[in-house]
Amino acid sequence: MDIVAQLEVRSKGVNEAIKSYLEDGENQKLLLAVQHYPSAGGKRLRPVLAEVVAQAIGGAGEKAIPFAAAIELIHNFTLVHDDVMDNDDMRRGRPSVHVLFDEPTAIIAGDALFARAFEALSETDVPSESTRRLLKLTAHAVWLIAEGQQEDMDFERIPHTKLSIGDYERMIWKKTAVLFECAAEGGAIIAKGTEEQISAMRDYARNLGAGFQIYDDILSLLGDEKLTGKPVGNDIRNGKRTLIVLHALKELESDDPGRKILLSALGNADATPDQLTEAVQVLKDCGSIDFAREKARRHAIQGKKCLEILEPSEEKDFLVAAIDYAVDRNV
Amino acid sequence: MDIVAQLEVRSKGVNEAIKSYLEDGENQKLLLAVQHYPSAGGKRLRPVLAEVVAQAIGGAGEKAIPFAAAIELIHNFTLVHDDVMDNDDMRRGRPSVHVLFDEPTAIIAGDALFARAFEALSETDVPSESTRRLLKLTAHAVWLIAEGQQEDMDFERIPHTKLSIGDYERMIWKKTAVLFECAAEGGAIIAKGTEEQISAMRDYARNLGAGFQIYDDILSLLGDEKLTGKPVGNDIRNGKRTLIVLHALKELESDDPGRKILLSALGNADATPDQLTEAVQVLKDCGSIDFAREKARRHAIQGKKCLEILEPSEEKDFLVAAIDYAVDRNV
Repeated sequence: MDIVAQLEVRSKGVNEAIKSYLEDGENQKLLLAVQHYPSAGGKRLRPVLAEVVAQAIGGAGEKAIPFAAAIELIHNFTLVHDDVMDNDDMRRGRPSVHVLFDEPTAIIAGDALFARAFEALSETDVPSESTRRLLKLTAHAVWLIAEGQQEDMDFERIPHTKLSIGDYERMIWKKTAVLFECAAEGGAIIAKGTEEQISAMRDYARNLGAGFQIYDDILSLLGDEKLTGKPVGNDIRNGKRTLIVLHALKELESDDPGRKILLSALGNADATPDQLTEAVQVLKDCGSIDFAREKARRHAIQGKKCLEILEPSEEKDFLVAAIDYAVDRNV
Repeated sequence: MDIVAQLEVRSKGVNEAIKSYLEDGENQKLLLAVQHYPSAGGKRLRPVLAEVVAQAIGGAGEKAIPFAAAIELIHNFTLVHDDVMDNDDMRRGRPSVHVLFDEPTAIIAGDALFARAFEALSETDVPSESTRRLLKLTAHAVWLIAEGQQEDMDFERIPHTKLSIGDYERMIWKKTAVLFECAAEGGAIIAKGTEEQISAMRDYARNLGAGFQIYDDILSLLGDEKLTGKPVGNDIRNGKRTLIVLHALKELESDDPGRKILLSALGNADATPDQLTEAVQVLKDCGSIDFAREKARRHAIQGKKCLEILEPSEEKDFLVAAIDYAVDRNV
């Protein structure tokens, strides 16, 4: 299945909804700032997930559109704020919101996207009791995402010897997988799925999100800058404690020259492109990238098991293909 | 009526609720950051407004507590982000969140408070259909607050000759009055008020909020720093286009020496305390402070008219006293 083409087709409705949600406002600068990331594209994996899960369970995908738009708006709100916090100047091949405007505008734009997400959510055409459930689910997801982002930043300052792979897994669950979970769980609620179905869709999406994030860390090291829109090796320069880095630091003995190369680039704002390339080579040589790839693949296998509860359908096939794509893509 | 004492008594329930909403989380640093402003006090005018309006209309005030807590959490979220954007280092007599922690933590703490506010809102014990209405109302209020904050910042960079008092009024409606409106309207919805009652409570709160903000601008010039917790004259240093400043710049002829004194301090980060004192004197002398005081009083009169729809009650008396207090207080 050509998942990229599928995403394009399946995201048409939600793209129109997102556009319409970001048209109304009195402040032109703020409107331009909130539109900047959503209009630059993005895979739309999260909102399409909400729609496809609703369809796979038996509901109409269209019913899920306002909720799906809310999920994508929340995703974009976190990107705007994360870029301020991480000092990332580029996103989707364009200047970040805080670069194009300024930091205060970026902070407000993030807040405004967050607010509009909940306005969108309130328009989801479901029985009122489900509105309450979707609200609680989504608001709690954002709290967890905030914790995840805080932990991601804290990790950069914690000695790597004090961080376990379990710490990393919990952090990426919050930072990334929670919003995938929320999308899928919400889609299942909208389609009036059974509690068993809702739970299975959540578990599927947790694995999708975790695999997606682990593969994201790989792409940040090996990806094509032109496709990812982000400078290669940025995570190393920023001192991110990714699964790959944590694995390498456990594998490399204290007298291994590779360890010295890696540590001299990790969190070094002045690391040269050559230093970053060497550090990536170390991560390859000690098997850490393969280790991460294998972890991501295992998440895909786990996630696909959760889909067994679904009747055969095109949507089920899409969900299978989506998780395979999440752990083996070029952007 | 001793409104300060009343606020203290009437906010007990919501204070407990706020405390409990900010206890649960895995990241200690983030919990401390989100608790920092709510635990430092504050008047709790907004949440108490929600409760008292519910009672005045005939509902149980307790039913409004989760919603009231949500309103106060939203207020605190905006304070945390505003302080980052305005570079305000002190709040309620204590260091701001971004000073005590750092800017990224303050951005995340604001987001987390926002998220928890909507979790609180989802727990309001009302018919499900009202949950949807409260959600839409509150989420849209936050969008407007974001616009108001953007305009407040934009105004600092727009030549004052291009700003009218109408621009100022629209900006403070969004930045301040909208959340009061949301609190009162929500309280009326929770109490199952008629559309006429809901609308009257919204109009009352709009006047309360506008009067409150105008008086806030006066306090920032004349208030006791120990009580307000903010350095006197900060608004002048930051170049804020308050009603007072806009009025003065319209009143003072181009050759008036007072105009020069005011303009040399306005937006001048290096203005000395003496320069600020002189600028305040100019604002007094040309009647701008009295003008603002009169505007605020007129809002109080308008607001009280909206209360005529209510049956006599202690709560109605409180609402009358609250709007008088908003436009004549010392903190």
